[in-house]
Amino acid sequence: MTDPNDPALRSFVPVDPASDFPMQNLPYGVFSARGLAPRIGVAIGDYVLDLWGLEQDGRLDVEPGTFAASSLNAFMTQGPKVWARIRARISELLRHDNDELRDNDELQKLALLPMAQVELHLPIAVAGYTDFYSSKEHATNVGVMFRGKDNALQPNWLHMPIGYNGRASTVVVSGTKVRRPRGQLKPANTEHPSFGSCQRLDFELEMGAVIGQTSPMGEMLSEAQAQEMIFGFVLLNDWSARDIQQWEYVPLGPFQGKAFATSISPWVVTSAALEPFRCRGPEQVPQPLAYLRQAQANNYDLELEVGLRAGSMSKSARICRTNFKYMYWSSVQQLMHHASSGCAMNVGDLLGSGTISGPEKSQRGSLLEISWNGTEPVQLADGVVRTFLEDGDSLAMRGWCQSEGYRVGFGEVEGTILPAD
Amino acid sequence: MTDPNDPALRSFVPVDPASDFPMQNLPYGVFSARGLAPRIGVAIGDYVLDLWGLEQDGRLDVEPGTFAASSLNAFMTQGPKVWARIRARISELLRHDNDELRDNDELQKLALLPMAQVELHLPIAVAGYTDFYSSKEHATNVGVMFRGKDNALQPNWLHMPIGYNGRASTVVVSGTKVRRPRGQLKPANTEHPSFGSCQRLDFELEMGAVIGQTSPMGEMLSEAQAQEMIFGFVLLNDWSARDIQQWEYVPLGPFQGKAFATSISPWVVTSAALEPFRCRGPEQVPQPLAYLRQAQANNYDLELEVGLRAGSMSKSARICRTNFKYMYWSSVQQLMHHASSGCAMNVGDLLGSGTISGPEKSQRGSLLEISWNGTEPVQLADGVVRTFLEDGDSLAMRGWCQSEGYRVGFGEVEGTILPAD
Repeated sequence: MTDPNDPALRSFVPVDPASDFPMQNLPYGVFSARGLAPRIGVAIGDYVLDLWGLEQDGRLDVEPGTFAASSLNAFMTQGPKVWARIRARISELLRHDNDELRDNDELQKLALLPMAQVELHLPIAVAGYTDFYSSKEHATNVGVMFRGKDNALQPNWLHMPIGYNGRASTVVVSGTKVRRPRGQLKPANTEHPSFGSCQRLDFELEMGAVIGQTSPMGEMLSEAQAQEMIFGFVLLNDWSARDIQQWEYVPLGPFQGKAFATSISPWVVTSAALEPFRCRGPEQVPQPLAYLRQAQANNYDLELEVGLRAGSMSKSARICRTNFKYMYWSSVQQLMHHASSGCAMNVGDLLGSGTISGPEKSQRGSLLEISWNGTEPVQLADGVVRTFLEDGDSLAMRGWCQSEGYRVGFGEVEGTILPAD
Repeated sequence: MTDPNDPALRSFVPVDPASDFPMQNLPYGVFSARGLAPRIGVAIGDYVLDLWGLEQDGRLDVEPGTFAASSLNAFMTQGPKVWARIRARISELLRHDNDELRDNDELQKLALLPMAQVELHLPIAVAGYTDFYSSKEHATNVGVMFRGKDNALQPNWLHMPIGYNGRASTVVVSGTKVRRPRGQLKPANTEHPSFGSCQRLDFELEMGAVIGQTSPMGEMLSEAQAQEMIFGFVLLNDWSARDIQQWEYVPLGPFQGKAFATSISPWVVTSAALEPFRCRGPEQVPQPLAYLRQAQANNYDLELEVGLRAGSMSKSARICRTNFKYMYWSSVQQLMHHASSGCAMNVGDLLGSGTISGPEKSQRGSLLEISWNGTEPVQLADGVVRTFLEDGDSLAMRGWCQSEGYRVGFGEVEGTILPAD
C-alpha cells in the first residue's frame, strides 16, 4: 500500500498548490448538502468527498453506518488501525492513476460535491473541553501585564502544563456568530460590581487536539499511549471576556469569562497527516518530571495567522502571524498530565493548546497581548483602530503546514461578534 | 388528582417511618436485576419499582422506551409537565387504596423488586459537571486557613456564586471504589516538586442539582426558568486531593486535584418531592445584582451527615452533621449565574453546591476544615485518628428532609479508598 503522506501523490481532483486540502491532507468533517442529513466527508481541493455515499456503495470497509453519523465520534472509537486503513483507502480512491472513482461518473456525482455547495457542521460531539495555557511567551506576557516582570511566570508553570476544564456546551463550528457576553464587571476605579455587556472582548489563537480513544479512570498514560489517542487537530478560538474573567477568576479560575463560546474549524486534520511536519519544541528547563517526559519530537511546524475585519473594512487585516512550534508543552504532554491523577479521557475530548504566542511582537495570539491590555491600540486599515473586539468584527484564524509544492492546512475558523442585545 | 406530597398518603408497600423512601419521595434511579439491562426505577421503602416493566405493561404514558434507558436524560428531556404527570401516576399506582398494582400479583412480580437484589447505576449521563463554592462558612474557613482572618473571603465572593467547571468523565455512582490519585506535589518545605500519591486526600460534602432542561446559547435565565430546569438533587462527594490542588491551582483553578473522582447517590430526589421543605437561606448582604435576585425561598431544610469508617472499625463514626439550608447561594442562583454569559445549559448537567459547612464546628463538611488543615486530628473510635483519608477508609454521606412521621431522603453516597497502586 502506498504512503498517504507521499509528496508525489496526485489526485484526479484538481488541487491548487495554495489549497489547504491536497492528497496528503484528507481532513475529516461533517457536512450536509442537497437537503440530506449530515454525514462525514473528507476535503479534497475545492470538493468534499461524501464518505457515507462511498460506504453505501461498498467502497469503505467499516462498521455499518459509521459515516452516516453527525459527528466523528463513532468513527474515532474504532481506533488507530481503522483510521490508518481508511486514510489509505481514501487516498487510493482519489489517486490520479486509479480509475475506480475517477472514471465512474455516477459515483462521482453521488460522492464528490463542490465545497461551496455544502454546509459544514461541528465535526465532533465534544465530550469534555479542557483548555491549557502552554505558551511560555503568552503566559509571560500576561504575567508581566498583571504581576510585573519579576513574577511573570507562576512557580508551577515550568513544571506542568497548567490547564482548566472549559465548557463543552458552547463549542461551535466556524461561521457561528458569537453574541457579546454579559457578566459581572468591576473596573479598577469602581467600588461596586455591576452587570453589563463585556467591554474587553478578545480572541485567543489556539490549536485543539481531538481525543479519539478512551482511557480508563484510575490509569495513567505513557507517551506512546497518549500519542496514539490523538486523532487530529482543529483550529480553535477561545473567545475571552477579559473583564468578566478578571473579576471572577480568583480563586477557582476562569468560568463565565470563557463559557459563552469556543469556535473550532470544521475540518479535523489527522495526526497522521501532520506527521511529516513534526519538530522539536523549545528546550524544557528544568527537565520535566518522569511522567511528563517525551522522547519524540512532539511539536508541529504549523504556520498560523489571524485576520480581523471590522464591518466597515473590505478585507481583513492580519494582526498575528505565529507558529504552533513555539508551544512549550506539547499536546501529548498535556494529555499525559490530564490523565495523571486517574482522570478518565473520552472519545471527543477536546484539548485547547492555550494561546499560541511567539517570541516576536507580531506573534502575539490575543488582543490582550497585541494591544498590551488596551494601552497600545492596533491600526487595522481605513483608519480603523482596535484594542478589543467590537460588534460586527469578524475574526478569522488560518493554519497550515507548508511543504514543497503543497500545504496541509486547516481552512479557517471564523466568528463575527453580535451585539449583547 | 391527589397531591403526591400529601403527608397522609400511604402505600400498600410497607415503608418504615425511618425509611428514606416513603410515598412522598419517589426518587428516580437506574438499576439492573435478574441479568436484564439497566432501566429506570423508583425507590419505595425497601423496594424498587421497575418503570420499564410498568411502561411495557401500558401503565405509564410516555414516549415509548423512555424507561428502558440507562440514564434519566431522555425522561428529563420530556419536561416538567411530563415529570409532574408521571410522579402523580406513580403515586397513584402505589396507593394503599388502589388495587391496580396492589392486587395484581403478576405485575408486582414483574415490577416490584427488593432493593437488596438490584444493582444501582449512575442515574444520569453527566453532560457537564460544574462545582460551586457557595457556603460562606466553608469559604471563610478555607480563607482563614490560607490567607488569615482579615482576607478570608475574596472580594468577589459576596457578589456571585463562585464556581468552576469540573470533570464530567469521572462522576461515579455510590459504591464505586476510589483510587488514591497521583500528582505533582510540592510541600512548603521542599525546593522542587515531585510526582507521587496524594498525601492529603479529602472529601467534600455537597448536594448536586440535576439539570433536566436545556437553555440556548446566548440567553440568560429568569428565576422561574432556572427553577423549572432543576429536575432534582443528589448527594455529591467532591473528592479532593488537597496537596495536588494547592500546587496546581494558581492561576486557573482546580484541575487534577479534583479530576480523579466525584461520587453521587444513585437516587435523584425530585425538586417536586423537596417542595414542602423549602426554606429561606441566609440573608444576602449586599443585595445581589438584579440578575441573581430571587423572590422565592430557595434553600431546603435538608439534614446532612457524614460517617467515616476505617478498615479496622466495626461501624462508622459521624464526623459532620449539618444542613443544606446554610448555603449562601442557592442552586437557582448558581444556575442563573451559570447561564448569565450566554452559556448553554444541557440536560444532564450537574451543579455541585460546594462544600456544605455550617456555623458550628461540628458542621464542617470536609476534613480540611474538621482537622483544620491537618493540625487538629479527629478521634474516630477504637483509637483511630484521622487528619485526611487513608487507604481502606469508607466515607459515607446521608441526607434527608424530616417531616412528621416520615422523611424524604437520599439514601447514601459511599466510597472506599483504594491505594494508589
